[in-house]
Amino acid sequence: MTKLKWGLIGGGRGSQIGPAHRLGAQADGLYTFAAAALDHRPDEGRAYARELGVAADRAYGDWQEMLAAERGRDDRVDLVTVATPNATHFEITRAFLEAGFHVLCEKPMTMTVEEGEEIVRVARASGKVCAVNYCYSAYPMVRQARAMVRAGEIGKVRLVVTSFSHGHHGDATDADNPRVRWRYDPAMAGVSGQFADCGIHALHMASFVCDDQVETLSADFASTIASRELEDDAMVNFRMGRGTVGRLWTSSVAIGRQHGFDLQVFGETGGLRWASEQPNQLIYTPVGGRTQVIEKGEAGLSDDAARLSRVAIAHPEGFPLAVANIYVDLAAAIRGEARDGLPTPADGARSMAAVFAAVESAGKGGAWVDARPPMFR
Amino acid sequence: MTKLKWGLIGGGRGSQIGPAHRLGAQADGLYTFAAAALDHRPDEGRAYARELGVAADRAYGDWQEMLAAERGRDDRVDLVTVATPNATHFEITRAFLEAGFHVLCEKPMTMTVEEGEEIVRVARASGKVCAVNYCYSAYPMVRQARAMVRAGEIGKVRLVVTSFSHGHHGDATDADNPRVRWRYDPAMAGVSGQFADCGIHALHMASFVCDDQVETLSADFASTIASRELEDDAMVNFRMGRGTVGRLWTSSVAIGRQHGFDLQVFGETGGLRWASEQPNQLIYTPVGGRTQVIEKGEAGLSDDAARLSRVAIAHPEGFPLAVANIYVDLAAAIRGEARDGLPTPADGARSMAAVFAAVESAGKGGAWVDARPPMFR
Amino acid sequence: MTKLKWGLIGGGRGSQIGPAHRLGAQADGLYTFAAAALDHRPDEGRAYARELGVAADRAYGDWQEMLAAERGRDDRVDLVTVATPNATHFEITRAFLEAGFHVLCEKPMTMTVEEGEEIVRVARASGKVCAVNYCYSAYPMVRQARAMVRAGEIGKVRLVVTSFSHGHHGDATDADNPRVRWRYDPAMAGVSGQFADCGIHALHMASFVCDDQVETLSADFASTIASRELEDDAMVNFRMGRGTVGRLWTSSVAIGRQHGFDLQVFGETGGLRWASEQPNQLIYTPVGGRTQVIEKGEAGLSDDAARLSRVAIAHPEGFPLAVANIYVDLAAAIRGEARDGLPTPADGARSMAAVFAAVESAGKGGAWVDARPPMFR
Amino acid sequence: MTKLKWGLIGGGRGSQIGPAHRLGAQADGLYTFAAAALDHRPDEGRAYARELGVAADRAYGDWQEMLAAERGRDDRVDLVTVATPNATHFEITRAFLEAGFHVLCEKPMTMTVEEGEEIVRVARASGKVCAVNYCYSAYPMVRQARAMVRAGEIGKVRLVVTSFSHGHHGDATDADNPRVRWRYDPAMAGVSGQFADCGIHALHMASFVCDDQVETLSADFASTIASRELEDDAMVNFRMGRGTVGRLWTSSVAIGRQHGFDLQVFGETGGLRWASEQPNQLIYTPVGGRTQVIEKGEAGLSDDAARLSRVAIAHPEGFPLAVANIYVDLAAAIRGEARDGLPTPADGARSMAAVFAAVESAGKGGAWVDARPPMFR
Repeated sequence: MTKLKWGLIGGGRGSQIGPAHRLGAQADGLYTFAAAALDHRPDEGRAYARELGVAADRAYGDWQEMLAAERGRDDRVDLVTVATPNATHFEITRAFLEAGFHVLCEKPMTMTVEEGEEIVRVARASGKVCAVNYCYSAYPMVRQARAMVRAGEIGKVRLVVTSFSHGHHGDATDADNPRVRWRYDPAMAGVSGQFADCGIHALHMASFVCDDQVETLSADFASTIASRELEDDAMVNFRMGRGTVGRLWTSSVAIGRQHGFDLQVFGETGGLRWASEQPNQLIYTPVGGRTQVIEKGEAGLSDDAARLSRVAIAHPEGFPLAVANIYVDLAAAIRGEARDGLPTPADGARSMAAVFAAVESAGKGGAWVDARPPMFR
Repeated sequence: MTKLKWGLIGGGRGSQIGPAHRLGAQADGLYTFAAAALDHRPDEGRAYARELGVAADRAYGDWQEMLAAERGRDDRVDLVTVATPNATHFEITRAFLEAGFHVLCEKPMTMTVEEGEEIVRVARASGKVCAVNYCYSAYPMVRQARAMVRAGEIGKVRLVVTSFSHGHHGDATDADNPRVRWRYDPAMAGVSGQFADCGIHALHMASFVCDDQVETLSADFASTIASRELEDDAMVNFRMGRGTVGRLWTSSVAIGRQHGFDLQVFGETGGLRWASEQPNQLIYTPVGGRTQVIEKGEAGLSDDAARLSRVAIAHPEGFPLAVANIYVDLAAAIRGEARDGLPTPADGARSMAAVFAAVESAGKGGAWVDARPPMFR
Repeated sequence: MTKLKWGLIGGGRGSQIGPAHRLGAQADGLYTFAAAALDHRPDEGRAYARELGVAADRAYGDWQEMLAAERGRDDRVDLVTVATPNATHFEITRAFLEAGFHVLCEKPMTMTVEEGEEIVRVARASGKVCAVNYCYSAYPMVRQARAMVRAGEIGKVRLVVTSFSHGHHGDATDADNPRVRWRYDPAMAGVSGQFADCGIHALHMASFVCDDQVETLSADFASTIASRELEDDAMVNFRMGRGTVGRLWTSSVAIGRQHGFDLQVFGETGGLRWASEQPNQLIYTPVGGRTQVIEKGEAGLSDDAARLSRVAIAHPEGFPLAVANIYVDLAAAIRGEARDGLPTPADGARSMAAVFAAVESAGKGGAWVDARPPMFR
Repeated sequence: MTKLKWGLIGGGRGSQIGPAHRLGAQADGLYTFAAAALDHRPDEGRAYARELGVAADRAYGDWQEMLAAERGRDDRVDLVTVATPNATHFEITRAFLEAGFHVLCEKPMTMTVEEGEEIVRVARASGKVCAVNYCYSAYPMVRQARAMVRAGEIGKVRLVVTSFSHGHHGDATDADNPRVRWRYDPAMAGVSGQFADCGIHALHMASFVCDDQVETLSADFASTIASRELEDDAMVNFRMGRGTVGRLWTSSVAIGRQHGFDLQVFGETGGLRWASEQPNQLIYTPVGGRTQVIEKGEAGLSDDAARLSRVAIAHPEGFPLAVANIYVDLAAAIRGEARDGLPTPADGARSMAAVFAAVESAGKGGAWVDARPPMFR
């Protein structure tokens, strides 16, 4: 099978997300890393791309240059990953979709609901594959949870409880560190801090596993470090389309929690638990029965969970391979196979609607507000 | 040292809380089980009391009989534990206090805020020791957490996050079981179901460890099993006197969680975690440092934590000994020694104010309301 | 039901095991603490006994005085607990049995195999209840494990793997501390250090849960701190009567392990795991199936496990209540009810035979030797 | 930087180890998968190689064909991975080394000690890089453990305790499954079953982390399923060059243990614990202090641990990336940079010497024997 050609925008030297994308795209041998525009400093970006094995003529200084050059090539890249600063995701994603490239966009997909809806429309019109990197949803045991919910193994879902709470911004003496500060500065981060950064991962996860959508929400935001204009801690209660009650806590000042992303789903006939720091186990309890450990790689998993496991049971697979799973499914989708697990532009738009709804609700003392993008109401 | 004389009201054969009180009172050899009125069926109560070693003339048919007889004895009981159905706590507690007995009352102390304030006044006037059985606060490692917070070891507390969520009422086919149903029936349970049953333990714990009081709150209640009039799942956000943000989730439909009572406290310079299913460890992370395990029984614990450990490090001490710790402190208090860890009538009144505030807030779509009893505003 | 009268020998102020016995005997209200000889310093022992509520005339200066006085009383104690230094267990246990008292003896029951066999004979002749305090075997989930093995739920047992390894003697700078040093001094401790102290708990547990006896063993002993004459780390391989392979590791220099007592049992159709630091869960995996968590207090446990749980599921019960379970079963046995879970003098004799066998084997470079007392060959 | 060219021998469709090597070699973008001889069925091997993106003229039918063709190419592969059945490792590794290729050989490197010594000599003479895939040693937190031991952070090492015990061969009804049976058949597996398969991983790990070598050992082997000629459970006690005591348990009938590979190291001033199922944490306890969790990706790790982490703290990295770390270090070594963490032919030879020593010792009732290859005595 011929490899797909892959291009990366953003993710320069020292970035956190760049390595995850390079590992994700390359691990399974499905893509050639063919083009890149890695840095806002053109020379640095070109040099780093060449170090990483990209040919000199496809090591670009910026995304516009890359777009212009690649669209004209016969061997143009098939898939572009957008891993630039958040405020630029919308423009770049739109441009590449319109030019006929498949696109994987980092979250948040856009900075506004309107932009989110625009990407939905552009992606649909383009006929190209467009996905948002809610990569946690690609862990085998998250897919297993979704499959069990869909198969009715826990009955109608009553309640979903999720948190994404770490403590890495908990040091007030470090609050002015530029790597931290921008996240709480409306000029850089937009209307929301921690909820827009981590909370939307948890919100997507809840929707993904419950196979349902958030309709209304009520939020409580706090800036526990006084210098912050945006929230570093948030609680969001929500209701989903089929009546499921939701509870989502996200924090960046929860000192001692490292990653702190977990999910609990409770239905009429069972409960499920999953945590991103032990991603290879799914904990399942049938009502009235004993708690069981479902292991990645065990016999009898759902098709999706089995397909996305690479090595034997109890050989852990981690975050970079969850990202790789997104690339596996993208490769299939690009080749025309259906992959319903890929996070969509609609997911991206829904996230932004939830962010704006949470900001509104928190500003109104927790009032319940509609959390859906207008186009999905 | 002469043993104190102890009497138990409620806690008859088959009750859950009766064994915990008998173990708690007897384990350390501080009390003689001298009198009892164990059951609403007088003969059954008398018979069971005799089986448990209570003298026949002090095995009473009801609390009124016990009150009348004991108040006239020279060797009357020193301490009375009230472990009857919730709606009777107020009346019995008040009567015994007024008659000059020390009282340990099960939670909830009362059914209304007004009754709660009344107990505060009666207890104060009586000069007797009155405590409420928020027994989790008597675990050595909870006392250690409180001591560390008070000593400033995690700095100013920014955030407290607690849950008390189990799944034991999650089976809809069991919802009409009388042992379950009454908890969601306003005629029996009052204005609140799960929050009044378990949530107030978590709320007390948050206040206890943070050494602060809840002032305002916003609640979201859900009855995930349709036949229930009262909530079986609740989320309560709150603010404390010194600005601490609080998040409290309580549920009885969280299938797979057994006890599910845990606490996380995050301050300026560190974080703490404790869970009731592993009560002998306290997890501590200094900001910027590594997570550490503090063990019950290790060298260098706070006075309170050290004093309330009985056996060596890593020899687990469980729930009955947490209850026993309440009795240890009660014995000291009865003998006139100061014991500031004992949960007070004020704590009981505050709990009821929080329950009514949560009900009000949930009814108003999450509006923030004052959570304090009028007497403490 | 009339309470039994209980006497304690040893376990004076500051001892570790004294509190466990007092809690164990008193927690369930089955015994009155009626007599005591708590200390090798007569006045200190008498004073401490009176502090603990023992009547002045039964607060004795030594065990001989206690024996002489109690045997002459009409209200003599029913049960005597021997919690004195190891080298005195034999003499005291024998004397009280011969005088017609029921006896609970701390481990090790004796210092030699011959003494162990002597206690077996004396106990048998006396017609009295005599038990050895292998208290871990009285945890409900250990009883559950044994019941499952007996019921064939894991098939024929192939393999049992156990460890009792802590690090509390790992500090060489503390090796001369008298509380530590005596354990590695043959003049005080006898022929073995760590194996005789902790290893025999693990060996008893293996026998108890497998319902089988150790027949042969091979040992490797090490003194990892050079000043020690006796081993502080030992590995013992063994074979049981029905062919089960055994592996037992015990250490006192395993820094970071606190209690470190755990058990794994593997049969033809399943495996079980239990650890003393989380004693309320038993982990069970059927062959080819998922790992399950069996919780103390869940529905459907074995009779023994259910009977010895006091409070509801997920309310932890710890070490002192495991000791209390020994006292519960002793009370039943004293009243003539069969209690097959109580550790017997034969268990005590077998432990000593295993200790001497391990010493012999380690001295012979790991040669396999018979581990049975002569009387049980 | 130009990519290295990589060839794979063995690891055909359906193999367990093939995917791990492909992920390992490709994840970091350091190698091009240029040549392959994947299957003992030539056509199947060629077809699968082409599917995986290998050019048709380098998709070989067997290793001899590959050797003949590649040695004649200007663009010949730099590194060959040998992942064929165990009995062929020696011949293939030797042949490729002699032809001037760098080689990564799966474990066991050879079937005899003599062959092992031969590879040591051939590799030395060739001047090429030759490594054995003891890939667990490449986890960042294993490197951290080694670095801490080397830096004296736990003092002189007294004791190392390791196990590699799973239950995947515990079903007697599955014992004739060809995928299982060959491991216990001397004609296929050689002199040892489980110890040669998994035990040598644990033995290498002990040596690696302690930075010391096994000198003598005593073994106890058992075939718990009667039809097996080779052991499915083994305990090996050993002593290392600097006096460290070792304990190693390995089993394939430990039902309920999934991977079950863990390591404990105890020194004069601290202890370390690591487990392959939670590979991103290293547990450290300083003597007299609290247990701490060292996280992959935290600040202040050893150079090696930091260098081999790809994504942020608490983003798990799993088994395939441990294998990738071997490839990272191989790439560096091929380019002439020193990488002292790579497992060497000497390690491979030492493993075989230990296997033969354990077989001898078990046959002699646990007698202590020399565990070193003659060339290293």
